[in-house]
Amino acid sequence: MQNDDSSAPQYRKLACRVVDITCGQGVTIVEPANLYGCTLEDGVFVGPFVEVQRNAVIGARTRIQSHSFICEKVTIGTDCFIGHGVMFINDLFKDGHPTYDVDAMLKTCIGNHVSIGSNATILPVTICDHTVIGAGAVVTKAIATPGIYAGNPARLIRPL
Amino acid sequence: MQNDDSSAPQYRKLACRVVDITCGQGVTIVEPANLYGCTLEDGVFVGPFVEVQRNAVIGARTRIQSHSFICEKVTIGTDCFIGHGVMFINDLFKDGHPTYDVDAMLKTCIGNHVSIGSNATILPVTICDHTVIGAGAVVTKAIATPGIYAGNPARLIRPL
Amino acid sequence: MQNDDSSAPQYRKLACRVVDITCGQGVTIVEPANLYGCTLEDGVFVGPFVEVQRNAVIGARTRIQSHSFICEKVTIGTDCFIGHGVMFINDLFKDGHPTYDVDAMLKTCIGNHVSIGSNATILPVTICDHTVIGAGAVVTKAIATPGIYAGNPARLIRPL
Repeated sequence: MQNDDSSAPQYRKLACRVVDITCGQGVTIVEPANLYGCTLEDGVFVGPFVEVQRNAVIGARTRIQSHSFICEKVTIGTDCFIGHGVMFINDLFKDGHPTYDVDAMLKTCIGNHVSIGSNATILPVTICDHTVIGAGAVVTKAIATPGIYAGNPARLIRPL
Repeated sequence: MQNDDSSAPQYRKLACRVVDITCGQGVTIVEPANLYGCTLEDGVFVGPFVEVQRNAVIGARTRIQSHSFICEKVTIGTDCFIGHGVMFINDLFKDGHPTYDVDAMLKTCIGNHVSIGSNATILPVTICDHTVIGAGAVVTKAIATPGIYAGNPARLIRPL
Repeated sequence: MQNDDSSAPQYRKLACRVVDITCGQGVTIVEPANLYGCTLEDGVFVGPFVEVQRNAVIGARTRIQSHSFICEKVTIGTDCFIGHGVMFINDLFKDGHPTYDVDAMLKTCIGNHVSIGSNATILPVTICDHTVIGAGAVVTKAIATPGIYAGNPARLIRPL
């Protein structure tokens, strides 16, 4: 049945929105964006077509570019650059399916002055300050040494 | 010439929309979304910034997360989780360019209880029930054994 | 502090828009889209959820599919197909952080009749006419021989 048949089941429409956010001074958000329950510190910039979930924290002066997705349990430091189409992960589907239990979701912690290239994918890990993640990289392990990392899985290309 | 010059050529604006869809009970769609001519079975969830093309079929209780693109000739089973920024493909550009002939486009068939990680890319293949595709993976071959697959190209990491 | 507290700092809202573009005859843009200061030649198609930055040039009859991002310093030829979720890059973060100096940004030049698969990532390189980039590929080096290239980093799969 088509939705233009008034007897057909109708879907529920929700609208993308910016709601219940905590923000500092000088924050800019380009809409449409879907941000809820997150914290954006002073001077954060969020480009269009971005989703940031509940309890995520974005540090001061960090830029989140268009098309990126930042999930619950992600903390990003200050002065970071998150490129376009970057996806964060908080669930490894270890049992073969997603968990819907927030307590079982995994944390990601990005340091300060970290730059992440476009289309990168960040599994739930810790990344140290002053690191660069190359465009298209898939980061599967914690990074404790500042450097440029790229590839799938991401490997150290050169120290910084 | 600029568009603010009234003598300049003007572009045609279309709006992203949900049109001509067939849907079951309890479907939720977060807008903006671009869905046309597709089927969403009972309880499907579609996040924001998603495009689903004509004739795609999404099985009951499957969740399509933000930023994903599902093309014509894709069928997804029940109870699946399609992460954020997942892209499906129906054309391998075998002759060096796209085909615009629907009959020449290739099919993708995703089983039931399949979970696909964010930023994964799914070439036109069959994926069996109870499979997990890791975040950032590029699936280039059919998957007939349940397991966790990751990498570019995707390889079996461990059975499930 | 929450934004619903009237004493709290308020964020600045910008809206995604199509502004200051130069376009030829028969251009179509599906909104929402964020296009500013770029040139779209005759017959260009731009899908939804796309960003094209200042000074980018898109050649005649080229199609930019949904979710793609085209940055400043990118020139794309005629009759190209840019898939869904394709990201272009103009900054390699060589010094460990982004440059905000336009003169230091790097150029990308895509020839004519080039087809780029979905979720591909294109570093600042030159790609010759009649080339195919596979879905999910990360192109890190110039391509001077027509062929099909795929993987991360992208390698020649077969000539065309």
